[in-house]
Amino acid sequence: MAAAAPSFCPNRTISLSTPSHNHNQLTSLHSLRRFSVSSSSISSRCRLLFDSNNRILTPTVKASAAATPVMDQPTSSSSSAVPTTVDVDLGDRSYPIYIGSGLLNQPDLLQRHVHGKQVLVVTNSTVAPLYLDKTIWALTDKNPNIKVESVILPDGEQFKNMETLMKVFDKAIESRMDRRCTFVALGGGVIGDMCGYAAASYLRGVNFIQIPTTVMAQVDSSVGGKTGINHPLGKNMIGAFYQPQCVLIDTDTLNTLPDRELASGLAEVIKYGLIRDAKFFEWQEKNMHALLARDPNAFAYAIKRSCENKAEVVSLDEKESGLRATLNLGHTFGHAIETSSGYGHWFHGEAVAAGTVMAVDMSYRLGWIDDSLVKRVDMILQQAKLPTTPPEAMTVEMFKSVMAVDKKVADGLLRLILLKGPLGNCVFTGDYDRKALDDTLHAFCKS
Amino acid sequence: MAAAAPSFCPNRTISLSTPSHNHNQLTSLHSLRRFSVSSSSISSRCRLLFDSNNRILTPTVKASAAATPVMDQPTSSSSSAVPTTVDVDLGDRSYPIYIGSGLLNQPDLLQRHVHGKQVLVVTNSTVAPLYLDKTIWALTDKNPNIKVESVILPDGEQFKNMETLMKVFDKAIESRMDRRCTFVALGGGVIGDMCGYAAASYLRGVNFIQIPTTVMAQVDSSVGGKTGINHPLGKNMIGAFYQPQCVLIDTDTLNTLPDRELASGLAEVIKYGLIRDAKFFEWQEKNMHALLARDPNAFAYAIKRSCENKAEVVSLDEKESGLRATLNLGHTFGHAIETSSGYGHWFHGEAVAAGTVMAVDMSYRLGWIDDSLVKRVDMILQQAKLPTTPPEAMTVEMFKSVMAVDKKVADGLLRLILLKGPLGNCVFTGDYDRKALDDTLHAFCKS
Ligand SMILES: NC(=O)c1ccc[n+]([C@@H]2O[C@H](COP(=O)([O-])OP(=O)(O)OC[C@H]3O[C@@H](n4cnc5c(N)ncnc54)[C@H](O)[C@@H]3O)[C@@H](O)[C@H]2O)c1
Ligand SMILES: NC(=O)c1ccc[n+]([C@@H]2O[C@H](COP(=O)([O-])OP(=O)(O)OC[C@H]3O[C@@H](n4cnc5c(N)ncnc54)[C@H](O)[C@@H]3O)[C@@H](O)[C@H]2O)c1
Ligand SMILES: [Zn+2]
Ligand SMILES: [Zn+2]
Repeated sequence: MAAAAPSFCPNRTISLSTPSHNHNQLTSLHSLRRFSVSSSSISSRCRLLFDSNNRILTPTVKASAAATPVMDQPTSSSSSAVPTTVDVDLGDRSYPIYIGSGLLNQPDLLQRHVHGKQVLVVTNSTVAPLYLDKTIWALTDKNPNIKVESVILPDGEQFKNMETLMKVFDKAIESRMDRRCTFVALGGGVIGDMCGYAAASYLRGVNFIQIPTTVMAQVDSSVGGKTGINHPLGKNMIGAFYQPQCVLIDTDTLNTLPDRELASGLAEVIKYGLIRDAKFFEWQEKNMHALLARDPNAFAYAIKRSCENKAEVVSLDEKESGLRATLNLGHTFGHAIETSSGYGHWFHGEAVAAGTVMAVDMSYRLGWIDDSLVKRVDMILQQAKLPTTPPEAMTVEMFKSVMAVDKKVADGLLRLILLKGPLGNCVFTGDYDRKALDDTLHAFCKS
Repeated sequence: MAAAAPSFCPNRTISLSTPSHNHNQLTSLHSLRRFSVSSSSISSRCRLLFDSNNRILTPTVKASAAATPVMDQPTSSSSSAVPTTVDVDLGDRSYPIYIGSGLLNQPDLLQRHVHGKQVLVVTNSTVAPLYLDKTIWALTDKNPNIKVESVILPDGEQFKNMETLMKVFDKAIESRMDRRCTFVALGGGVIGDMCGYAAASYLRGVNFIQIPTTVMAQVDSSVGGKTGINHPLGKNMIGAFYQPQCVLIDTDTLNTLPDRELASGLAEVIKYGLIRDAKFFEWQEKNMHALLARDPNAFAYAIKRSCENKAEVVSLDEKESGLRATLNLGHTFGHAIETSSGYGHWFHGEAVAAGTVMAVDMSYRLGWIDDSLVKRVDMILQQAKLPTTPPEAMTVEMFKSVMAVDKKVADGLLRLILLKGPLGNCVFTGDYDRKALDDTLHAFCKS
C-alpha cells in the first residue's frame, strides 16, 4: 500500500507551511463555521463559542512565521536556528509552542520560562538515557544558580496512576521544591499527562514546561492543558486543566522513536484533517510516505499544522464545553479498546485509529458522509501502518460497558464525534439513531 | 479567666452586624492600606493588588443585608428564614455563602446550585449519622429526578490522604457520575478539603458545594477555594485552587460540635481580627463568652464577619501571591506543631493558637508591636480555651526542619506573617532579623 502513496513535494509544502496571518485567520474561521451542532441539547452547551449576535468568535491563535520557513530550516542541531512558534492564546495563561530541529541545543528557550531556582525534570527509564543530560545542560548552561533534580518513572501507560504520581510528589518534597519551582515533563504523553497533573497539584500549582518527545505528545497531548492519570476503572478519570509555561518541541527527538510509536502519533495528525482541516488531510494523503520516512521538514510542517489546529480549538473552548470535544474523534471507541485490551497492549493512537474507522463507519450508516470518505480514511490509516479494526477479542458488550462511563456521557446520554458533510466537517452529538451505533458495534465485533 | 469576659451586648452587636455597603467598602479599603509590605522581593509579588497608578484596587466583596438583621433572625429551624448572604466575587467563579439557622431545611438553597442529575455527598462516619439524611432530603425534596449517592469516609486528619481520596473517586466512578455531577462536602475542614480536591480532579473538574459543619470550616476552610490533602512529609502539600458553586452554612449544625472543636475554630476568628479587623477583635474580646455559650446570634455574626474578611482577601488575591498569605498568621509555627505532634493529636486551630502566640512574640521581639497587644492576644486565646504554648516535646530543631519545607519558603527564604503597628496590622515578609526567630523558638522550646 505504501507504493500507492503520492510522492513528497517540497514546493507544494513550502507554500502551505508559510501561510500569511490573514490566510490563517480565514482558514480557521472557515473551519469553525463548518463545525455544526445537530442536537438541540448540545447547542446550548456550545453557546460560549458564539458572540451575542450569534457570530462565531474570532479565533485567537497566531502562528508567527519563523525567520526561515519550516522547509528551509536546517535539520542539523544548529543552535542559532529560529524556532517556528505557535501561540496558544488563553488570556493570562497564554503560552508559546516552539517547534524545530535542535531546540534542546538552545538553552535560552527553556531558561526564559523558568522563574524560580528549582527545577524538577520528570521523565522515564527509556527517555532518561537519551535526553535527560541534554535537558539538564539546557536548563543549567550559563545559569549556575539553578538547582535541577530529576525523577525517573517506570515506562508505560500501566504506570500512569496514583502510585507513580506519588513518586513525583515524594521527590519534590524531599528536594524541598517551593512554590516558585518548575516541573519539566520530558517524554511522551504519559509523562506529560502525569507531570502536568503533578505540577497542577503540587502546593496547589507550580510552573510547568512540556518537552514532548513522541509524535503523539508533540502534535496533541502537550498542547491544551489536559493533564491526568488513569483509575483502574477508566482512563484519564482523575486530572486537571493546567496550562504549561511553554512547550518545546525538538523534532530531533523523533529520531529515536520506534516505528510503531511514530505511527501511533500520526492517528492524531489524521484526526485534525478529518474534523476541521480538509487541506491538511489532502497534504497528508500526498506526504504520508515522507512522514513515515521521518523527513524532518514534513514532520515540522505536520506538527506545526497540528498544533495550530489544536491551539485554535483549545483557545475557543479550553474546558471542553463543546467544540473541544471534536478532538476526540475515534476516542470513545478507542478508549473502549484501550481499556478492554489492558493499558499498554494497544497504543493510544492505534486504538484511536481503529476507533476512527468505527466512527466513520457509523457516520456513513447514518447517511452523513459519502462512501468515498470512508475509503479515504481506511486508506490513509493503512498507509500510516495503523490498525483499522478493533482487537479480535472485543465484544459488543465490552464496548458498551466502557462507553457507558465515558466522560462524554451527560445525564445518561452518550455523545459522539461523527463526521457529517464533506471532508473536514464533524458534529459532536447525542442525537443519532441508536441502531447505527449498534450496527457499527456488531459489524466490528464477532460477538 | 472566663469570669473576666465582658458580657454579650445585643445592641452593640446589631449595629455591627448590619453595616451599610459603603461602610463596608471603606473598612476594607482601609484595612488594605494597612497591609504593608516590607521586603522588596515581596512587593513585586504583590503587584496585582494595585492598579497601574499604584492605587489599591477596589475590593469586590459585597455583603448583602439579610431581610432581617442577623441578630433578629429566628434561631429555630424556620424554613422561611432569609439567609445572610456573603458574595465572593471572583469573576465567572463567583459564588454566594449562605449563613443562617435552619438553612438545611430550605431545599431550594441547595437545589438551585445543582445543575446535573447526579450528586455525590462526601461525609464522614461522625457527621453522617447526624446530618446525612437531612442533606439528602434537602437535595431530593420535590426533585424526584435527582440521584444522590454518598461516600462515608473514616473521621480524622490522619485520613486526609491519597488513599482516602481514592475512595471518593472509586464511588464516583462506580456510580457512573458524569461531568455534570455535583460533589457535596458535608463535614468539617478535612471533608471540605478532600471533597474539594476530589471535585477539582474528577474528570478534570465537576461542580462542588460546601456544607461546612464545624466552626473551622464555617469561618475559614470552606471559603476561598483552597482544597487538598496531606503528604506523609507535609500538610496540604497536594491540592488545587477550586471554587465551589456555593457554601451553605447552617449554624444549627454547631449544636452537636464538641467544645474542643468549637474552640479550635475560634482561633481563626481571632486571626481575622488581628491581621485586618481591629473592631472585630474588640467585638470578640467582649463577646467571647457568648461564643463559648454557643449563642446563635453571636455565632451568626462572627461567621459572617469572618467570611467577609476572608472573601475580601480571596477576591483580591485568589492564588496567594501576597495578601492572601496574611491569612496564615500563626500557621507556619502551627503547621510545625501539627506535623511534629502527628496529625490529629493537636487540632488545627489549637496549633494555630499556639503558633499565633509565637508569631506575636516574635513581632514584639522585633519591636514591631506593643507589649499590650501581646497580652491581649494571650488573654483572648486563653478565654477561648485555646493553648498558648506548643507541646512540651517540641524542640527548636523540630520547628526548623518542618518550617524549611513550608509553602511560604520562596527561593530558600522563609517568609512569615507578623504583626506590625497597632492592632489590625500585619506584614508578610522575609525581611526580619533571624535572631528574633531563633529567640522565639528557644523561648517556647525546652531544647
Ligand atoms: N493530554 C492530552 O490532551 C492527551 C492527548 C493525547 C494522548 N494523551 C495521553 O498520552 C499518552 C500516550 O502518549 P504517547 O503515545 O506519547 O505514549 P508514551 O508516553 O507511553 O510514549 C510511548 C513510548 O515511547 C517512549 N519514548 C518517548 N519518547 C521517545 C523518544 N524520543 N525516543 C524513544 N522512545 C521514546 C516512551 O518511553 C514510551 O515507551 C496516553 O496516556 C494518552 O492518554 C493525552
Ligand atoms: N482549605 C482551607 O482554606 C483551610 C483552612 C483552614 C483549615 N483547613 C483544614 O481544615 C481541617 C480542619 O478542619 P476542622 O477543624 O473542621 O476538622 P475536622 O474536619 O476534622 O472536624 C473536626 C471534628 O468534628 C467532627 N464534626 C464535624 N462537624 C460536626 C458536627 N456538626 N457535630 C459534631 N461533630 C462534627 C468531625 O467529624 C471531626 O471529628 C484541616 O485539615 C485543615 O488543614 C483548610
Ligand atoms: Zn488522543
Ligand atoms: Zn487555619
